[in-house]
Amino acid sequence: MKYQTILDELLAQIQLEPIEGQVATYIPELAHIDPLKFGVHLSTLSGEQFTAGASREKFSIQSISKVLSLAMAFQLEGENLWERVDVEPSGNPFNSLVQLEYENGIPRNPLINSGALVICDVLLSKLDDPLEELLQFIRYISGRPDINYNKKVAASEREFGHRNAAVVHLMKSFGNIENDVVDVLDFYFKKCAIEMCCEDLAHTFLFFANHGKVPSTGEEILSRSQAKRINAIMQTCGFYDESGEFTYRVGLPGKSGVGGGIVAIYPGDFSVAVWSPPLNPNGNSARGMKFLEELTTRTGASIF
Amino acid sequence: MKYQTILDELLAQIQLEPIEGQVATYIPELAHIDPLKFGVHLSTLSGEQFTAGASREKFSIQSISKVLSLAMAFQLEGENLWERVDVEPSGNPFNSLVQLEYENGIPRNPLINSGALVICDVLLSKLDDPLEELLQFIRYISGRPDINYNKKVAASEREFGHRNAAVVHLMKSFGNIENDVVDVLDFYFKKCAIEMCCEDLAHTFLFFANHGKVPSTGEEILSRSQAKRINAIMQTCGFYDESGEFTYRVGLPGKSGVGGGIVAIYPGDFSVAVWSPPLNPNGNSARGMKFLEELTTRTGASIF
Amino acid sequence: MKYQTILDELLAQIQLEPIEGQVATYIPELAHIDPLKFGVHLSTLSGEQFTAGASREKFSIQSISKVLSLAMAFQLEGENLWERVDVEPSGNPFNSLVQLEYENGIPRNPLINSGALVICDVLLSKLDDPLEELLQFIRYISGRPDINYNKKVAASEREFGHRNAAVVHLMKSFGNIENDVVDVLDFYFKKCAIEMCCEDLAHTFLFFANHGKVPSTGEEILSRSQAKRINAIMQTCGFYDESGEFTYRVGLPGKSGVGGGIVAIYPGDFSVAVWSPPLNPNGNSARGMKFLEELTTRTGASIF
Amino acid sequence: MKYQTILDELLAQIQLEPIEGQVATYIPELAHIDPLKFGVHLSTLSGEQFTAGASREKFSIQSISKVLSLAMAFQLEGENLWERVDVEPSGNPFNSLVQLEYENGIPRNPLINSGALVICDVLLSKLDDPLEELLQFIRYISGRPDINYNKKVAASEREFGHRNAAVVHLMKSFGNIENDVVDVLDFYFKKCAIEMCCEDLAHTFLFFANHGKVPSTGEEILSRSQAKRINAIMQTCGFYDESGEFTYRVGLPGKSGVGGGIVAIYPGDFSVAVWSPPLNPNGNSARGMKFLEELTTRTGASIF
Repeated sequence: MKYQTILDELLAQIQLEPIEGQVATYIPELAHIDPLKFGVHLSTLSGEQFTAGASREKFSIQSISKVLSLAMAFQLEGENLWERVDVEPSGNPFNSLVQLEYENGIPRNPLINSGALVICDVLLSKLDDPLEELLQFIRYISGRPDINYNKKVAASEREFGHRNAAVVHLMKSFGNIENDVVDVLDFYFKKCAIEMCCEDLAHTFLFFANHGKVPSTGEEILSRSQAKRINAIMQTCGFYDESGEFTYRVGLPGKSGVGGGIVAIYPGDFSVAVWSPPLNPNGNSARGMKFLEELTTRTGASIF
Repeated sequence: MKYQTILDELLAQIQLEPIEGQVATYIPELAHIDPLKFGVHLSTLSGEQFTAGASREKFSIQSISKVLSLAMAFQLEGENLWERVDVEPSGNPFNSLVQLEYENGIPRNPLINSGALVICDVLLSKLDDPLEELLQFIRYISGRPDINYNKKVAASEREFGHRNAAVVHLMKSFGNIENDVVDVLDFYFKKCAIEMCCEDLAHTFLFFANHGKVPSTGEEILSRSQAKRINAIMQTCGFYDESGEFTYRVGLPGKSGVGGGIVAIYPGDFSVAVWSPPLNPNGNSARGMKFLEELTTRTGASIF
Repeated sequence: MKYQTILDELLAQIQLEPIEGQVATYIPELAHIDPLKFGVHLSTLSGEQFTAGASREKFSIQSISKVLSLAMAFQLEGENLWERVDVEPSGNPFNSLVQLEYENGIPRNPLINSGALVICDVLLSKLDDPLEELLQFIRYISGRPDINYNKKVAASEREFGHRNAAVVHLMKSFGNIENDVVDVLDFYFKKCAIEMCCEDLAHTFLFFANHGKVPSTGEEILSRSQAKRINAIMQTCGFYDESGEFTYRVGLPGKSGVGGGIVAIYPGDFSVAVWSPPLNPNGNSARGMKFLEELTTRTGASIF
Repeated sequence: MKYQTILDELLAQIQLEPIEGQVATYIPELAHIDPLKFGVHLSTLSGEQFTAGASREKFSIQSISKVLSLAMAFQLEGENLWERVDVEPSGNPFNSLVQLEYENGIPRNPLINSGALVICDVLLSKLDDPLEELLQFIRYISGRPDINYNKKVAASEREFGHRNAAVVHLMKSFGNIENDVVDVLDFYFKKCAIEMCCEDLAHTFLFFANHGKVPSTGEEILSRSQAKRINAIMQTCGFYDESGEFTYRVGLPGKSGVGGGIVAIYPGDFSVAVWSPPLNPNGNSARGMKFLEELTTRTGASIF
């Protein structure tokens, strides 16, 4: 069956089901999003585009941005990066301080908050204006020059971000943060407030499915080995303490955000982004997870 | 390059390097294994066989048996199985009681000790003689009727297995063990004491690479979806708290045992078993991990 | 005011209040105790006896026995005892395995289950029949030759005691148990099943209030320093993760049991035992705690 | 024997022993203290003063200040205080975030850092200038109008105090901090930087030994019940994860600070302050602990 038919059918089917989960409420800007919104976009390496629902409506990509900042830091630092952050699944909620304390300020992986904050610190030490460079990078790959972050969201994140502040202070007490706590948090909150639509996300993440090269231009963003390794990290760590469940049900590497977005990669084949704001108890889009499970079941797309 | 050339070259190369890691010493039968032993066998779906070193020498498969008992239990119970064991990476050593206590006796996944012990309990409730059935299953798939467990190893495991006994008693206190503690442990220790060579293991695990069907006969052991799901569990949980590292470096689903064996699966392509007794600090074969990393780097075999 | 008047008034007052808490239900023998039972007995060093309610009715002393077995082991081993068990409050439930795993099988203190099980192991290594010696010791001090343990309670404890079995196996895996697991558990469960009444308990514990000497005979059970030290351990560790609360409210060293008994010591002055089966969420007698708080408030009896 | 003779003898004895432990090095101002300094002062309720060594030399009282700020907050809030902080020993290092995260931002007790920071927050909400009021309170009770905090120490604490900042942010994320994080930390660090000598400390803490009344004037600082309760908290929580050990060896309520000071209380009798900078691995003055153990052994002073 063609992808477009499957997307259309799954969209129709999912809209008949009762909504499960809750829209994120920790900041007012996210709390007011319409829970019925649903969008999906799938881009193949051969250039085909499949789309359904509100696939061009921008939303807060939140933790999905962690993969992009990780890619930048990996470009700059290579394997040295792993001296400051590990690549193991955490087995704990995304923002836990327990493991960080037991493990002397070295985060389990770069896709939980603590790890992503270390990545921000790495980029702050290497680049003059890492936020601007990250935005340029995303604009370039996605071909969408208007991509930006939402200032109100970033401000709210900062206001209510005491747990992230605790995480950075704790890591700094262990010597694993080089820059000022305020600067690390500022970059992190702005980066999480970047807004993109499903189409943008699918385009942007397509190079992870193409062994590190942008399909349209052939430009190498990451080496083949680096792209494989980031995909591997997404597979084991992309969904907090539901990473095993996502791997089990969907069978593709991916990353979610509390804005309700999920991106998944089928290496050698396609990237797909879905968006549905209500989150399950583990903080991942409930409908997004179901949609991707159905999609991979129907298409047989799985790395396993 | 052909697989045989690569195996031969890697074997030659690895034998020049100093031995790292330590042979398991917790029972005398394992402690006396020659640390220089090294074997590897790779079987493709098209029926090719590649082999190097001591690939026909039997060793204690230990935790590798957990995947096979899981496959049997999954056949019998289907998705109900997950009411008694989860599919998340643990983020803790293989035999930790901490998580089990916090999580009310439900193990994180079926490939850590607690989860494998629950699987043993499931099989004991369903089958008259689960050990015999497991052995028959392995003999049938591998085509090796002489496969058996080592009685001395099983006896030693029992004698020194107080931590596993603690795990079973704790789970029973939470109501997650139905059978007698002694019977669960007895089955578990015997199952872990099964002895196979690299060739046997590669043959046996090939159906996981073939969407659940035995390539030579076409018989379906697991459904396509079930095979995918067990591969997914191997990917996220197969190497204790080094599962992320293995995924990152090797990029294939697999499972290790403290006897020094590792099996890995390249879905749609091949299965491979390596054996080298010295273990790294996380309890996985040090040379085996390196060998598989080199193998996938040279061949480009990776699911990502 | 005289102690007798206070006991009578508090008894009258407490019987008007609604019952809070729940009788222990983990074994049938405890579950069937009448929740309205209440007894209290206070013995002074000068030989006065004050009593109210069901003070001569026997009940299962359970964890209160831990102080008596500790006293015996301390007599035999002296300060060497602390190589196998610490004297710190645990900050965790009485039967937690978490701390034990992090701290390599050394229990936090001798009044949580793990610590008391180590004490049982110590006595088993030193004495031919430690249960008989413990019973003789209690019969001698209390002057009650009929004190014994309840066989049905001991049998039930064993049947449902999988968590304690887990604790002993875990400690044995760390090398902190010398005897057979079954023997340690057998002694422990029998010892916990000892039955005494409030009067027996007050008489038996009076030597802790008298710097280690039995007041009636002058016989020294423990040295002055040893008695002080056990009182100190009762103060910081006697009430599981409510030890701070008991110290805060009552201000006396003491020990509780899930049978609903509590013994408290006013050094240089008196011992007091109360009994009321319903337990608060921390496993301590709800009415017993309140009674002792009122008693010390009215009499000004506090070590602080 | 008279107290003065004992103090002199113990001082002579302790100076012959090799120094154990390490002076606190986390801020430069503490790192440069002479490790050989030793002072002690004992004040009785009857007005006698006993002194030895550098008993009039000021040092940084650090965590000893937690008892004084607690006393102020208890005066102001009464039992309501315990809605925001518990009275249980922590069983963890003084600055652990683990428990705080598991227990939703409610500190275990007011004498670990997290609890003392909540007390600072309480005082900031109630008082215009809590630091000034605390200083006035100490100056008044001790009769030493020149007592103040050390600005350089406070500044260094702030500069290196990322773990405490993490603690406050984490508690604020749970809603258990009302004021600005910066203000809470500022008050906390200044309060910890208060400098007093052994004589000042013994004088100041004497009202805890006198059921809440200043002996010289009869003024009631705390009610009899309140004084008892703070003494109880000192007993179970005053020495971090060595509180049980101190209770066991010394048998008196007390509080230590990383400046090397320890204050202990013998209710109804005396207060005593010792000072020796080198700390044992638990962060308590090594010589101070030994001195107090010897003192109570020789004098028989113990509440047990």
